[in-house]
Amino acid sequence: MPEASYRKLEPVALSRVRLTGGFWAERVETTRAVTLPIEYDLCKKTGRIDAWKWAPGERHEPHIFWDSDVAKWIEAAAYSLTTRPDKKLERRIDAVVEMMAQAQGEDGYLNSHFLRVEPQKRWTNLRDWHELYCAGHLMEAAVAYHEVTGKREFLDLMCRYADYIGKVFGRKKGQKRGYPGHEEIELALVKLYRATGERRYLDLSKFFVDERGRRPHYCDLEAVERGEVPKGHRHGDYRYNQSHLPVREQTEVLGHAVRACYLYAGMADVAAETGDRELARACRRLWKNLTEKRLFVTGGVGPTSRNEGFTIDYDLPNESAYAETCAAIALVFWAHRMLHLDADAQYADVMERALYNGVLSGISLDGKRFFYANPLAVYPAMNEFSPGHVTATRQEWFGCACCPPNVARLLASIGGYMYSKGRNEIWVHLYGAGAVEIETKGQNVSIEQKTEYPWQGRVRIHVAPERPSTFALALRVPGWCRQAKVKVNGKAVALDKIIRKGYAHISREWKSGDTVDFELPMPVERIEANPKVRQDCGRVALQRGPLVYCLEEADNGRDLSDLALPRDSRLRVVTDRKLFGGTPAIVGKALRRDERAWKTGAGDGRALYRPAGSKTKSVTIKAVPYFLWANRREGEMVVWIREA
Amino acid sequence: MPEASYRKLEPVALSRVRLTGGFWAERVETTRAVTLPIEYDLCKKTGRIDAWKWAPGERHEPHIFWDSDVAKWIEAAAYSLTTRPDKKLERRIDAVVEMMAQAQGEDGYLNSHFLRVEPQKRWTNLRDWHELYCAGHLMEAAVAYHEVTGKREFLDLMCRYADYIGKVFGRKKGQKRGYPGHEEIELALVKLYRATGERRYLDLSKFFVDERGRRPHYCDLEAVERGEVPKGHRHGDYRYNQSHLPVREQTEVLGHAVRACYLYAGMADVAAETGDRELARACRRLWKNLTEKRLFVTGGVGPTSRNEGFTIDYDLPNESAYAETCAAIALVFWAHRMLHLDADAQYADVMERALYNGVLSGISLDGKRFFYANPLAVYPAMNEFSPGHVTATRQEWFGCACCPPNVARLLASIGGYMYSKGRNEIWVHLYGAGAVEIETKGQNVSIEQKTEYPWQGRVRIHVAPERPSTFALALRVPGWCRQAKVKVNGKAVALDKIIRKGYAHISREWKSGDTVDFELPMPVERIEANPKVRQDCGRVALQRGPLVYCLEEADNGRDLSDLALPRDSRLRVVTDRKLFGGTPAIVGKALRRDERAWKTGAGDGRALYRPAGSKTKSVTIKAVPYFLWANRREGEMVVWIREA
Repeated sequence: MPEASYRKLEPVALSRVRLTGGFWAERVETTRAVTLPIEYDLCKKTGRIDAWKWAPGERHEPHIFWDSDVAKWIEAAAYSLTTRPDKKLERRIDAVVEMMAQAQGEDGYLNSHFLRVEPQKRWTNLRDWHELYCAGHLMEAAVAYHEVTGKREFLDLMCRYADYIGKVFGRKKGQKRGYPGHEEIELALVKLYRATGERRYLDLSKFFVDERGRRPHYCDLEAVERGEVPKGHRHGDYRYNQSHLPVREQTEVLGHAVRACYLYAGMADVAAETGDRELARACRRLWKNLTEKRLFVTGGVGPTSRNEGFTIDYDLPNESAYAETCAAIALVFWAHRMLHLDADAQYADVMERALYNGVLSGISLDGKRFFYANPLAVYPAMNEFSPGHVTATRQEWFGCACCPPNVARLLASIGGYMYSKGRNEIWVHLYGAGAVEIETKGQNVSIEQKTEYPWQGRVRIHVAPERPSTFALALRVPGWCRQAKVKVNGKAVALDKIIRKGYAHISREWKSGDTVDFELPMPVERIEANPKVRQDCGRVALQRGPLVYCLEEADNGRDLSDLALPRDSRLRVVTDRKLFGGTPAIVGKALRRDERAWKTGAGDGRALYRPAGSKTKSVTIKAVPYFLWANRREGEMVVWIREA
Repeated sequence: MPEASYRKLEPVALSRVRLTGGFWAERVETTRAVTLPIEYDLCKKTGRIDAWKWAPGERHEPHIFWDSDVAKWIEAAAYSLTTRPDKKLERRIDAVVEMMAQAQGEDGYLNSHFLRVEPQKRWTNLRDWHELYCAGHLMEAAVAYHEVTGKREFLDLMCRYADYIGKVFGRKKGQKRGYPGHEEIELALVKLYRATGERRYLDLSKFFVDERGRRPHYCDLEAVERGEVPKGHRHGDYRYNQSHLPVREQTEVLGHAVRACYLYAGMADVAAETGDRELARACRRLWKNLTEKRLFVTGGVGPTSRNEGFTIDYDLPNESAYAETCAAIALVFWAHRMLHLDADAQYADVMERALYNGVLSGISLDGKRFFYANPLAVYPAMNEFSPGHVTATRQEWFGCACCPPNVARLLASIGGYMYSKGRNEIWVHLYGAGAVEIETKGQNVSIEQKTEYPWQGRVRIHVAPERPSTFALALRVPGWCRQAKVKVNGKAVALDKIIRKGYAHISREWKSGDTVDFELPMPVERIEANPKVRQDCGRVALQRGPLVYCLEEADNGRDLSDLALPRDSRLRVVTDRKLFGGTPAIVGKALRRDERAWKTGAGDGRALYRPAGSKTKSVTIKAVPYFLWANRREGEMVVWIREA
């Protein structure tokens, strides 16, 4: 077993959590029943599954990171088995694992592309070729499958691979001092360490973290070995993969956003397991830069398609926002680790923001289609003219299919993000109908949440230890909530006295039958962005509870940019049964210009410019949750609404 | 001599126009004294000049359209000789022409790349390889040089080339039914026709115009000949080069903007010379689409760097506006031709808008640096993160150096855009200090303008025929002017009675000493854009006279997007001697948010989002003419200012 971690909180395992009939339970069920079968079929159809058993040279097709797609699907499927046992699904996974076992090299190497298509190129281009990235995803899948089923075969396979990687990479003579061009294995190795207790996996993770960005630059050395020009990186420089500086010296979130957030999550993991304060400080510094200057209101990260990543402070465009689904997921991973390191609700706030908005928008309500990028505004003909993956409609699949199985594995494991244990506390980070069994002080404490969160803000929590026991229940007071109230067994508790770092600590002797009523009022809020966010000046986003809202053409007609919301316009919440079966929408009065004033002469002639002073007319607008956009017909969408 | 044209107006030749001490005279002088020598040196240094005499295979360097850069420089230099004779400059041109004469094939072919580098590829890829485009530019240069100097050698050379092209292309057996992938030769051939009277050049132009877009598609046939896939166009489809449909069926301006506007100019030329009404109607239809739906307020065209061109109606982004300098120039050419076809001021209005804004912004005030793209808003670090050529600072030169010599040839010939002759009228399109001699009814009429236009709106015109003579002076009443007034010899004339299609026709017997006082009041105007222009909703552009203004960081500090101009804020014009020697600036009160409200706790912590309702403070803003932006230090800029 691993040594004691330095982190303040320990997450409560997914297997302990039951979600019952609420918001998340529905998404978990859709993932299980719809998304996972579809994704398996697509992996099968595209050759991703069978690539493992092709003879060397048989086909040139396996994509350089196909393995990661399969791995993420297995991981998602494994989590899904905790919700509902499924022998057929297990057999599917076992069959893939068996193929991998057959494919694995004598030395432990395991990568379908480099075993089958380009064996001579193994480990020759860490910068671009994703071998360690794929290895990391396979390790995560193996750990998940082992945790859920107790089966060891996949885990053993990956330990052999990890051991082999540990021989190839290191600071001893003959070893490579390289590190992944796409980070991911760092956090995976820490999972492997936690699952096996083998310290060497943690050490290898720390090695990868610490080698990054050292001089001479490994990617340069490696390029020269290949006979290429050093620095010839297609993305201009090493900020792209966060190797421009040693990670401890980094102060700005930079480069490809998924790479970045996976790295930062891995850094937080290493800091948590080693007590490395310098590394933890680097994580907090990067977090501060992200959350104070580079985070979309939806929890999306990475503003541009050019590097699928970060640019400069306060650059948060709406139409061209990349905000990759995978990046929001990676941010959830990072936030979750920071939360456990520091026990501070600022991390849970961002985690929740990303989950309910930038992550969930990545998948259609029916679980069948996916966004790669998650723009905050959409205009006509965007599918034709927008850059890269920024589209106005969700797709069934992608050539680079990282997002679909990534969103599946997060949704399938959402229960694992809800609760933690502290030294003498039970922590509740996310609200949602369901229950959990937490072992504390040698007994099981059952916690049950009854709530319609996020649609409304009342949460009733039943606390039931086996025997009366003194501990604190630490309830997160969401950052969006300005007037939370709490009652224990019907009696009000003064919140201001018990809040520390965003959590209300209710410390008492709990006994079975105790009830906490937590009230989180959810008025509609208008949010404004820092004046340095040039794209949002003069605009507001509507938020209710954890949900960011948006205007869609389906409800508001075309030319959404011309709508302006007066400052004194009253915004009401209405529940529309025809809107996805009764989703709360926000309605209010807004202004738009009268187009008739722009006609010139006869026919369809229109002026393009004219002296200012157009008359406006009053219209009713209806905003819907951002994560639900593009689930009806294709059309315009805006998150940031102009204020009049 | 060519047959009588069907166009309503004939331009008055550049050689007849003198510009004296005003706005344009300064730009012409800077072009002559600074820009042209710099451009020659760069053409020389980069090999563009000497490429003509390299031995076949000697170097692989000549760019596929280097010839066009040299041609545009010669054309500009030729125009500049009308301002000031310069034997040294003439010798330079003659030396290049001599090199071309040596290089020209027996058959008349003349292209430095395909003669020297890839002779086997001549005429094998009209779609991508710019041979006919380069030929067109050389023809334009030859016509200009002949007009100005009377020398025939260059013109004869190009007639031989044109005759050869006329043998290669055509509808007879063995001829190619191709047309240029980058239009330009269409308008050049009409110039050659007008210079020589040889009808075959007009016919060849008409052939190229009419073949475009026919089925089977020439670019497909040609691709198959090369052993390539038809339709394999790198820009997706044939809209890129306007060959998606026969030109007479086209209704939307589409594709690469420079290609498009050169084509439309060529179409207008062919219509003018052949009386082809259907072709003229197609031109007007395209014009309507452009000016009602796709024209930037600066006269720039082509919103995106993706195809350096057009997208969809009302898509006029500010930061990412491509609005290539060459495209605004091409628009001036097209507008000038439409103006002569129809004698309608709407064309001169657009021509003037483009000239004073989108064209002039392409070159620095000192004549040394150039913008390729002309965005309407600039943000920090734009040079690093913006797409393609969209930058916040002018450059000395470009690998693809189309814009610098293009702006030089337009500025050097600006006098040629000011006046025209009608059947019994003298037309004044543009205002500017200077004089012109116009031959009409067998005598010279001298017209002299005294004005400080565009800085102020008073224009005094002295009309002096050799003998008293009855004709109309047709003065353009600019579209931006709402309250023009005119006096003849001190006596007011009622304008509304004499305005036709935007021109005030003052018909009388004119005699030497007659004076017209034309008053064009120039209050500051706030302009708004059509509600369908999503990027400009809630914003106004400031315009005074023909000049669009902008806010620069140099005058207004950072975070320009946070400035909001109240509707009732009074805007005054002030002349600031420190601003480029006394340029009228626009000043007024605006609001911006107080950044201090965004501090969180100690240190430099800042909130990124917060509940709406920030306090604003009043600040003074100063706007400067758009064409002058980026002539001080690098910084932010906005044209469209938010209204509060």
